[in-house]
Parts: sequence; C-alpha cells; structure tokens
Amino acid sequence: MQQSSERCKIIVDAMGGDYAPENAVIGAVEAANENSGFDLFLVGIEKDITKVLKEKKLKFDTSRIINAPEVIEMGDSPTDAIKKKPNASIVIGSKYVKEKKAHAFVSAGNTGAMMAASTLIMGRLKNVGRPTIGAEIPNVHGTCHLFDVGAGKDAKPVHLFEYAVMGSIYAKELRNIPNPKVGILSMGEEESKGNEVTTAAFRLLKESKLNFVGNVEGRDILTGNVDVVVCDGFIGNILLKFGESVPKLLKHLLKQTADKNLIDKIKIGLFKSTLKRALKSLDYQEHGGVPLLGVNGISIIGHGSSTPKAIKNMVFRAYDMYKKDLNNKIENSLTDYLNIVDPNK
Amino acid sequence: MQQSSERCKIIVDAMGGDYAPENAVIGAVEAANENSGFDLFLVGIEKDITKVLKEKKLKFDTSRIINAPEVIEMGDSPTDAIKKKPNASIVIGSKYVKEKKAHAFVSAGNTGAMMAASTLIMGRLKNVGRPTIGAEIPNVHGTCHLFDVGAGKDAKPVHLFEYAVMGSIYAKELRNIPNPKVGILSMGEEESKGNEVTTAAFRLLKESKLNFVGNVEGRDILTGNVDVVVCDGFIGNILLKFGESVPKLLKHLLKQTADKNLIDKIKIGLFKSTLKRALKSLDYQEHGGVPLLGVNGISIIGHGSSTPKAIKNMVFRAYDMYKKDLNNKIENSLTDYLNIVDPNK
Repeated sequence: MQQSSERCKIIVDAMGGDYAPENAVIGAVEAANENSGFDLFLVGIEKDITKVLKEKKLKFDTSRIINAPEVIEMGDSPTDAIKKKPNASIVIGSKYVKEKKAHAFVSAGNTGAMMAASTLIMGRLKNVGRPTIGAEIPNVHGTCHLFDVGAGKDAKPVHLFEYAVMGSIYAKELRNIPNPKVGILSMGEEESKGNEVTTAAFRLLKESKLNFVGNVEGRDILTGNVDVVVCDGFIGNILLKFGESVPKLLKHLLKQTADKNLIDKIKIGLFKSTLKRALKSLDYQEHGGVPLLGVNGISIIGHGSSTPKAIKNMVFRAYDMYKKDLNNKIENSLTDYLNIVDPNK
Repeated sequence: MQQSSERCKIIVDAMGGDYAPENAVIGAVEAANENSGFDLFLVGIEKDITKVLKEKKLKFDTSRIINAPEVIEMGDSPTDAIKKKPNASIVIGSKYVKEKKAHAFVSAGNTGAMMAASTLIMGRLKNVGRPTIGAEIPNVHGTCHLFDVGAGKDAKPVHLFEYAVMGSIYAKELRNIPNPKVGILSMGEEESKGNEVTTAAFRLLKESKLNFVGNVEGRDILTGNVDVVVCDGFIGNILLKFGESVPKLLKHLLKQTADKNLIDKIKIGLFKSTLKRALKSLDYQEHGGVPLLGVNGISIIGHGSSTPKAIKNMVFRAYDMYKKDLNNKIENSLTDYLNIVDPNK
C-alpha cells in the first residue's frame, strides 16, 4: 500500500506465540497506549482476547477486535495450515493487508506460516523475486544486518542482489546508517573465494550504486565493520541458530569449570548477573521481531517466546516502516537496477 | 600408502606457520622424543632448521632434514605457489608422501597451499570425489565433528555422502566413538527442510549403513548429541570462522559492561582467569591441526599460529591415523557404497 495521508493501521496477531493470547494482547495494547500515531487492531479468537483484556484490566476499543475462530499452531505445516485454516488469525491478518484494510500485520506465531501467508496472500513487491528476513546481530562496531536468515533457500545470484538492496534500504531508513557497507558472506575476501552463486552476485553488486565492500568472512559478522551481510537463507538460518546456541555452550563450559574448582565456582556465582547484563544485547527479545522484506505490505515476524515488550517493539517497528515508506523505496530502487539484473543485458 | 610392517615415517614442515621455523622444529622434536614409534623428518631451509636446533639445544639426527630452499608464504596464492615454487617445503613434503618415501606430512603453513598440494600431488583415495577437512567442535555432549569446513565448495550430494562416510570412520577410529551419529546440517529436522543438495544427500544417506540421524540444525552443533555433521565446505568454513570470533565479541561485551559499572568491572577482572579456563576447550591449539581426509596419504594441516604443543599434537594425530590404517578403511567403505552412489542405479 502506497503511503498516504491515511492513518496507519496495524494488526497484531493475538494468537501468535507460546504465551498467546496474553503476551500478544498486553504488548499490543501497551504499544497503542504509548504511541497514538497509528490505529491498532487485534486479530484472533474474540472471546479469548476479551478475556485477557478483562483479566489484565486493559482499555481497548473492542470494535477493533477482528474475530478469527481458527488458530495455526506452532507445529502446523505452514503451507498446509494456511490452506486448511482460512479463518486463522495469520490468514485473516494477511488478507486485511492484501485488501488494503490495514498497512501492517505483526505476529509471533508459526514463522513458516507467517512467511507463507505474507508471501502468498500479500504478494511480492514489484521486481522482488524473493522476500527476505533479516537478523540484527550486535557486533564489535555496532550491528550487522544479516539477510537472508531463512525466508528462502537455493538463492540465485539475483536474489542475493535483491537482499543487498533491501537490506541497505532497511539499514539506512530504519537504523539511520547513512551509507551502509554491504558485503557478501564468503570463504575469503578475494572475489575468487566465493561459490558459484556468490561469485555471480559479486559481479552484479559491483555494478550497483550500493556501498559494496566485496566478500566478507564468517568472523566479520561479529567483528567486522560491515553493516549489511547477504547470504543464502539456508546459510543464514544455520548461522543464526548456531549463534543462538552459543550462550548455552558457554553456560555448560562455566558449569564444568565450576565443578572442578571451588574458587572458580564462587567467582562464577558472583559473576552470573554481570555476564547476563553483558549478553543482554544478544537477546532477540530486546530487538522485537524481524520484518519480512519484499512483500507487498508490512509483515513483522516475532519469536515464539516473545514477551509483551517484544510484541510492543514489533508494533513500533511496523509503524516505523510505514512512516519511512520503506516498501516504495524498495520498489523504486529495484526498478533503478533493472538494467543490472537483466539476464539479457 | 598401504599400512605395512614398515616403520611409520612422518615429515614436519619446518617452514609452516607464523612462528616458523622455531615452533615447528621444537614441536616436531618434542613429538619424536615423547614417542619412538615413528621416524620423524623435517623439511625446510636446512640452515634455518639447524640454527633452531642449535639455539634451542635440541637433539635431532640432521640426516633427517630434507632441504627445501623455497618457502610458500602465508599470503601466496595456493595453486600458483605450488606451481611456481617446486622446491618449497609444502611441495617437497607432499611429493615424499606421493613417492611412498613417507606416510604423513604435517604443516602449519599456508592452508590453501597445503590442501592444493596434498590433493594435486598425493592424489585422491579410490572412490573419493572430494577430500574434506573437518573441525572438532566441543559441545554440551562431547564433540561435534563438522565436515567439510573449507576443503571444497559447491559440493554435490555425493560429496556430502563421502564426508559422512569419512567423518564417521574418523570419529570411530580416532575418537573412539563406537557408532557415530551422523546428521546433515539443514534448516530444520524434517527431510523437506533441506536445500536441493542436502535433500538429495539425505536420500543417499538413508540407504547407507551409517548411523544416520537425519537433518540437524545450526544449534545442534553446540548442543545436540550428534557426533558427525556434514555440510558444504562453503557453509562449514563460514560457520567455523563465525564461531572463532565469538570470544572476541564476548570480550567486547564484557568490556562495555565493565565501563558502565565499577562493581561489574571488578567482578570481570576477578573472573577473567576463570573464563579463560572455561573457554580453553574451544582453543584449537589444544586440538592440534586437522587432517585432510580423502587424499592418498596422511596430510595434517595446522593453524598458522600453532604453538610447539599444537605441532606435537599434529604429529601424534598423523601417527594415530597411520596406526589405525584410516585410509584403507575409507577406501574399503566407499567401495561398499558404490551401489548407492552410482547415478545409473
């Protein structure tokens, strides 16, 4: 939907997440209370939503509840579920955006179903072959925006190119990085160190007006000063899940050390809260969901275990994307690049 | 070289690594002093080697120095270097193995040149399409053996199959894991969650006699109880370098926290040595190099910053591979599997 003078409308999936509807409803209402710039709607099983509103004594205009009697569970097969449960919150929320009744849909529900519903129902933006999901990973110099982390797999060179364009616009508009440095994730810095797909993507990106810094390596995600890193979603997804498991290994190694030596045990006990504070920036709850870029509407996907705070941040992110007119900027940029990615050129 | 009653001969590259020839010579001589089961040779610039032996007062039979007047530097382009410097230690060491004058070659030099020399000069074992390098990553349940971490890229399904066979034999023979669990690194556990290559490899592995547990995710490397994980070298390399950079980010986050709060600063100061002990198992120096599996000989490749201890461990690993007759076992297993991987089947 083209940005207009129209008031922004954001729908939150009340049934999305491991602690739904409670966390989703609380977070959504808090977002609406904190910022009056947009109209907020809740989609889900009406009686469950009103129950939470009542129990938590939350003020909310019940005419803004969109009833969706079915629920896509976390374990449901994504594409099957959106076909078999046409009255599920994820399907109805996406349809509202498709039909221009709302600008954004926010859900901490089944990630695969959210991606499928957003892509299939909202459709893709003009010139986007593959929508993409990014992760914001804190590093030594600030934040690395990694695209794609699992919206697609078996990406073609042109898809990596699109990720770079969309990721750069996102980093610039939503994260205020003036001229984001973009790199391709590879086995070495030299152009020749890529695989077949990244080497071809390298050639495309060299011709673009993006601030392309060439290939970057695995270590540059956490230590390099590159703002946007693009890779196949298969790799990004593996990397992200690997990274999320690091604190668990750290905890295990500390426990092993504590068990060997009493002084270490005492030190580790004292240190726990400090370590927790240090690792806080790695916590996705602080960031609050990720946008699926490239679909024709605003789609924000949250982690299943999203807290009310995470849900609130997801709503604010959706509103920010609306205000910055992100989707129009993506379409326009990709139109500018048609001559580069044209295979007949 | 087929294992025989012949005495094992191991060549160490004296010129390999950032602290060559010192670390390499010291580590090699220590290995020979600790274990008399094999004959040790040093290859490199003779006068540089004898200088270290003299300075460090090391006893070594100088008739076991193989003179190699050229040196492949860390920054040299691998395939160019092995062509343009035929008298470099890496080339000569590999030739000795090729010509059956030695069983194993160990180097902490230019990794790419070592891989190229081992593959091109020693050649591949029968039925091996792609040699592979593995990493041993400590996890909550023990160790995950990740193959491939960069010997190849754009792997075909049959290559992932070979990695699984070679990795299983390695984990069983060298790490005493009776029936290693093998998984394919993927985006989800279901068979459908793979990409084109892993889905085809899944079908091959299902038919094998390996203890195949299906797809595993990024988090399973550090937290799962899977012994061998196979992936394209492009992914493995990115993952390994990402993992190696985690301690650097941790240090950065701790510093940030310390700068904010004096008590945290004191706690972090007290805790430093404990953390270092806890992270010790992540230190590749403790492990000492990785074998390039699938080449016709024993090739052990070490990190550029290898200490004498790491070099020593690399020599012991080479000897262990010889004693366990690893290469014959790999060839025999792959012969057994010819009917599975035959594309005409």
